[in-house]
Amino acid sequence: MSLNSFGHLFRVTTWGESHGPALGATVDGCPPGVPIDPAMIQHWLDRRKPGQNKFTTQRREPDEVKILSGVFEGQTTGTPVQLMIENTDQRSKDYGDIAEKFRPGHADITYWQKYGIRDYRGGGRSSARETAARVAAGGLAREAIKALAPDVQITGYMVQMGPHRIDRDRFDWDQIEQNPFWTPDAQAAEQWADYLGELRKSGNSVGAVIEVVARGVPAGLGAPIYGKLDTDLAAAMMSINAVKGVEIGEGMAAAELTGEANADEIFMGNDGKPVYSSNHAGGILGGISTGQDVVVRFAVKPTSSILKPRQTITKSGEAAEIITKGRHDPCVGIRAVPVGEAMMACVILDHLLLHRGQIGVNRGQIG
Amino acid sequence: MSLNSFGHLFRVTTWGESHGPALGATVDGCPPGVPIDPAMIQHWLDRRKPGQNKFTTQRREPDEVKILSGVFEGQTTGTPVQLMIENTDQRSKDYGDIAEKFRPGHADITYWQKYGIRDYRGGGRSSARETAARVAAGGLAREAIKALAPDVQITGYMVQMGPHRIDRDRFDWDQIEQNPFWTPDAQAAEQWADYLGELRKSGNSVGAVIEVVARGVPAGLGAPIYGKLDTDLAAAMMSINAVKGVEIGEGMAAAELTGEANADEIFMGNDGKPVYSSNHAGGILGGISTGQDVVVRFAVKPTSSILKPRQTITKSGEAAEIITKGRHDPCVGIRAVPVGEAMMACVILDHLLLHRGQIGVNRGQIG
Amino acid sequence: MSLNSFGHLFRVTTWGESHGPALGATVDGCPPGVPIDPAMIQHWLDRRKPGQNKFTTQRREPDEVKILSGVFEGQTTGTPVQLMIENTDQRSKDYGDIAEKFRPGHADITYWQKYGIRDYRGGGRSSARETAARVAAGGLAREAIKALAPDVQITGYMVQMGPHRIDRDRFDWDQIEQNPFWTPDAQAAEQWADYLGELRKSGNSVGAVIEVVARGVPAGLGAPIYGKLDTDLAAAMMSINAVKGVEIGEGMAAAELTGEANADEIFMGNDGKPVYSSNHAGGILGGISTGQDVVVRFAVKPTSSILKPRQTITKSGEAAEIITKGRHDPCVGIRAVPVGEAMMACVILDHLLLHRGQIGVNRGQIG
Amino acid sequence: MSLNSFGHLFRVTTWGESHGPALGATVDGCPPGVPIDPAMIQHWLDRRKPGQNKFTTQRREPDEVKILSGVFEGQTTGTPVQLMIENTDQRSKDYGDIAEKFRPGHADITYWQKYGIRDYRGGGRSSARETAARVAAGGLAREAIKALAPDVQITGYMVQMGPHRIDRDRFDWDQIEQNPFWTPDAQAAEQWADYLGELRKSGNSVGAVIEVVARGVPAGLGAPIYGKLDTDLAAAMMSINAVKGVEIGEGMAAAELTGEANADEIFMGNDGKPVYSSNHAGGILGGISTGQDVVVRFAVKPTSSILKPRQTITKSGEAAEIITKGRHDPCVGIRAVPVGEAMMACVILDHLLLHRGQIGVNRGQIG
Repeated sequence: MSLNSFGHLFRVTTWGESHGPALGATVDGCPPGVPIDPAMIQHWLDRRKPGQNKFTTQRREPDEVKILSGVFEGQTTGTPVQLMIENTDQRSKDYGDIAEKFRPGHADITYWQKYGIRDYRGGGRSSARETAARVAAGGLAREAIKALAPDVQITGYMVQMGPHRIDRDRFDWDQIEQNPFWTPDAQAAEQWADYLGELRKSGNSVGAVIEVVARGVPAGLGAPIYGKLDTDLAAAMMSINAVKGVEIGEGMAAAELTGEANADEIFMGNDGKPVYSSNHAGGILGGISTGQDVVVRFAVKPTSSILKPRQTITKSGEAAEIITKGRHDPCVGIRAVPVGEAMMACVILDHLLLHRGQIGVNRGQIG
Repeated sequence: MSLNSFGHLFRVTTWGESHGPALGATVDGCPPGVPIDPAMIQHWLDRRKPGQNKFTTQRREPDEVKILSGVFEGQTTGTPVQLMIENTDQRSKDYGDIAEKFRPGHADITYWQKYGIRDYRGGGRSSARETAARVAAGGLAREAIKALAPDVQITGYMVQMGPHRIDRDRFDWDQIEQNPFWTPDAQAAEQWADYLGELRKSGNSVGAVIEVVARGVPAGLGAPIYGKLDTDLAAAMMSINAVKGVEIGEGMAAAELTGEANADEIFMGNDGKPVYSSNHAGGILGGISTGQDVVVRFAVKPTSSILKPRQTITKSGEAAEIITKGRHDPCVGIRAVPVGEAMMACVILDHLLLHRGQIGVNRGQIG
Repeated sequence: MSLNSFGHLFRVTTWGESHGPALGATVDGCPPGVPIDPAMIQHWLDRRKPGQNKFTTQRREPDEVKILSGVFEGQTTGTPVQLMIENTDQRSKDYGDIAEKFRPGHADITYWQKYGIRDYRGGGRSSARETAARVAAGGLAREAIKALAPDVQITGYMVQMGPHRIDRDRFDWDQIEQNPFWTPDAQAAEQWADYLGELRKSGNSVGAVIEVVARGVPAGLGAPIYGKLDTDLAAAMMSINAVKGVEIGEGMAAAELTGEANADEIFMGNDGKPVYSSNHAGGILGGISTGQDVVVRFAVKPTSSILKPRQTITKSGEAAEIITKGRHDPCVGIRAVPVGEAMMACVILDHLLLHRGQIGVNRGQIG
Repeated sequence: MSLNSFGHLFRVTTWGESHGPALGATVDGCPPGVPIDPAMIQHWLDRRKPGQNKFTTQRREPDEVKILSGVFEGQTTGTPVQLMIENTDQRSKDYGDIAEKFRPGHADITYWQKYGIRDYRGGGRSSARETAARVAAGGLAREAIKALAPDVQITGYMVQMGPHRIDRDRFDWDQIEQNPFWTPDAQAAEQWADYLGELRKSGNSVGAVIEVVARGVPAGLGAPIYGKLDTDLAAAMMSINAVKGVEIGEGMAAAELTGEANADEIFMGNDGKPVYSSNHAGGILGGISTGQDVVVRFAVKPTSSILKPRQTITKSGEAAEIITKGRHDPCVGIRAVPVGEAMMACVILDHLLLHRGQIGVNRGQIG
């Protein structure tokens, strides 16, 4: 049991603090023989990288990943892959304020209460910088998926910022890469740019909802009862910094449906595979993939580091006011998009591998 | 790795099918010396038991739990506790229809696709009957919590049925045990009774939202990064049959808040412990409990077994129509309340134990 | 993490005490579609059953296994298999003596020191009766191996009793089932019968060495570095009651060899598979099976329950003398033979399943 | 589940290959607040370092450990500790021979058969160089033990080289650090120096037996049934490269004893703790520590890389002869001493932490 690890067979352990010498992911269980192009792993990291546009923190980190083990002559060997990212932008500064005062909404106070010691520099281990390691691991997972199940395609995008949701009728896959919010709704992107610009100027921040879809996932993935595909996805997404809610398919709105409305009716497709009249289930029934799109959404709370003064206490228990200066994202949800994709990739690969160890003497056929 | 198990140190493995001879929970890691009153464990099972009122299935199961191991002279011994529930109401009937046709919204088709064999009787392993084992394990967890952290109180209740939400201004803890929906809003209970009665008559069903609160949880529980208290709660709740969404504190609505509105400000309480101006965080920061109420909500989809005819296919791939007769709950959310409580109890106990193995040389003090 | 569980994908959790109502094994990860003949599982249990001959305890337990879940219409379904054995011969007697005094060589004192409570009746959880659950699980594993890798044959036998070793020149597979010691050396069996008869009469006991061989294991099983096939076998055997040493291939004697003598030279066999000049390695190199026989040995200490008076202390710390009356095996090593076989079966099946989840895009070929 | 990890709560994952850029250990679960002196961790690594004397390989590796995370201002923070060792002596050479030919006694052939790809340079992942990471982790474990249970002392030493055993009557703790074999028998050290010198000259190698003792371990550590202290020690030692046998206390010789001879009688000590007349059990009863010395032995096979020509095959299945040139230890057992100590340290710390999470409401007292 490692509590900094996730995954069953594709097992990722992240390590490192925001302002230590390096951070990374120790990945065990990547199958051998997967062609690895380090530039592809770097590609995904670059998407998460800060300073990409005016809506993300201006901290400048090259976030260059180094592969220290597990790859030989361009292929994985089946041994652990160490993905290391050195921290370079450790701006020398006075941390006195956050060393003493607990920032509201941050893990400062709980790390202190739990451990009696904390690396306060930039949040230390609780910093969202930890997600860089996840994205590196997700990049590796994507390469393995490409080799083992090339039909699978994983895409994340933003569907809500603050109170503003996208219009599903304007959904356009091609738009996702065209705007700084990775949203499929070009009109929403424009609206959000104005909205977020205002918020940023006022020193405030806002939350968001991200949706991640995996297309081309074969039927049969998922390990009931407690390694269900949706259970693992819920844990994976909830473990991301600042996430407060996770939905599969219809999500919380499922509560409002009747059984009649919610039933995804089943038909036989032309290719001999089942097709469904709808996808309220989000591609998962009884914890096992149906072959439909696997659809997950998660809500990210607003960035806690804001320029608005908030009341707090110090380590010695005295009342204090705090303003969190520094280079912060007004909407951390934006950079959560590639993180959500990475978690999806890790979970899907994990279950592809796990499924091999679970299948039996005969396989289920329909028709 | 067991995929029918959950928990780190308090490890619960459930086993059994809906219509097999028995089902149960093998619980490892319960601390020794906990006084066990079997009647208390039975008490929680009785709450989940079918046939309690006209809004739950009329299947008659006594759901009597037998403790086969791990308890000696009225106390746990630190060895595995086997909690077995025999299935008695295995009504002899013709299963031909559901043996051949896949019920929409059920796991019939995915179990078939994954395993190539399935116990179709009553859903087999994917039946919500599996949750009886969880409730038994949760009852055991409650006894251990009582011994180790007597201030902790765990309560679940329904906050939404279909489109109808409770009014938080009418929230009354004392009402929860007074109505068949375990809702703290007496007026909602009346409204829902009418609403659900109508639905049931029409052979339809509806979803619900359940909230579970743990009060008195000490600060410091939770194991970042991937054994966070909220991560484990999300997984625990999402693993319950029919659950499609999980929220911590503000949940999905956190996306709509600004950072200023969302910040739970911190003050020093009279008892020398931190107090907070609000609880948007749901009692968890950075995956670690703050000492505030731990608040989780989950959405349960409408019962898939309905009397409305739906389109489906057979094992041999032919189109078919199906009506799921039998004794079904029009709103499975009702009986999910004690299940949610049980999962909360297991997670809290697990982290109480885990925390002991994680703490160090000195503990963190404030003030 | 369950500390009463072993195995990675074929995960066995045993539960139950010597004198409780029942004990058993909760087995998760058995692949679906395996034909199950309950009589075959019972067959292996019957071999371990007490009272088979004058050299094993006269406690009369039918040790009848009940399959409570995971099997449907004669096949495994991929869901947990619950194997329960009810305790029937719980002779009502006065346990006062062992309730107060710690028996030397038993776990009485350490369970007390660890847990502060113990089920002292017959050793409770630390009784060798727990191994019945392992043998049931091993019987299930054998059925799955039969379906997945029918060439594998697992056989255990005794190679040493007290100071008396078998003569390897007299090794005869057919003799193993012909004598009460499961030894391949008929002459040793006769000698041991006399030797053990004398020991028993004098109220004494003796240790033994058991060897377990798996023939027909394919090359490639084992998960370096910490799930090596030999690592898992060492843990599996050492976890059996009274075992004090485990050897793979040459074992402790490997220390005495030179590199030249120890090298198993490699040749190409007629069937296109590698063959080896010898098997000092015990069929495992770098933690991975070579395709040769997998050979494990373990030493079982003499039964601690003897009629010779020994010095001990009571719970209240007073000096006392103890004689352990009752029905005890003069050489527990005999009944450890089927237990060792069961552990081998579980480990081999586990690695057969695991290997599927570890293999990659291309497989290694020789030639 | 990570198969390159060991430990329950103190969880060590090693990564890296012999000739890659670096190798290391990702350590999760180290308790917070442990003072860390990097020089102390380096101290243990230096003992394992090659080139220390003429009996170990002349490969020159500084084996300098870098702590990349988990330590802040000289103390552990409770977050993962990354211990990295860069490989510097990657002598550029022609690997053509071992790239094609499988070295007998090495994992070359099995890695190939399992993975279909292998980093053949210096054995890649299967190289004993991986044990440097274990020693680093063991150094960290020692620091934590020092803080949590300062009475514990862990010492390893060689008790047999080839056919030559130490004389227990000459056992002297002070001698261990005085000779290149870490043996407590000064006379044996002299004899072995001559013996090994001869073997080395002839291009041959030999095996050894190492004993590791933990003194001052409190009673009560160990998690029956499958996380027993002896089970975990057996797995830990068997996972070390070239180990073929593991013994606890009396070990394989327990088979030769009678129950009367083997019983460690119990008395009450002057300090109110139990004392034993002997320690055949090796400090462990029923998988739980007794408070006596915990005694483990393991046999290391002779180095497989020798200058004597051996028969083998190539990747393409052709017969070949191989001589393994290079800088090899004539007795790898020597450098296995600090590795055995490191594994003992990791297991003891792990169970110290685990025990905290297992204890109950009341603790067991004697007297």
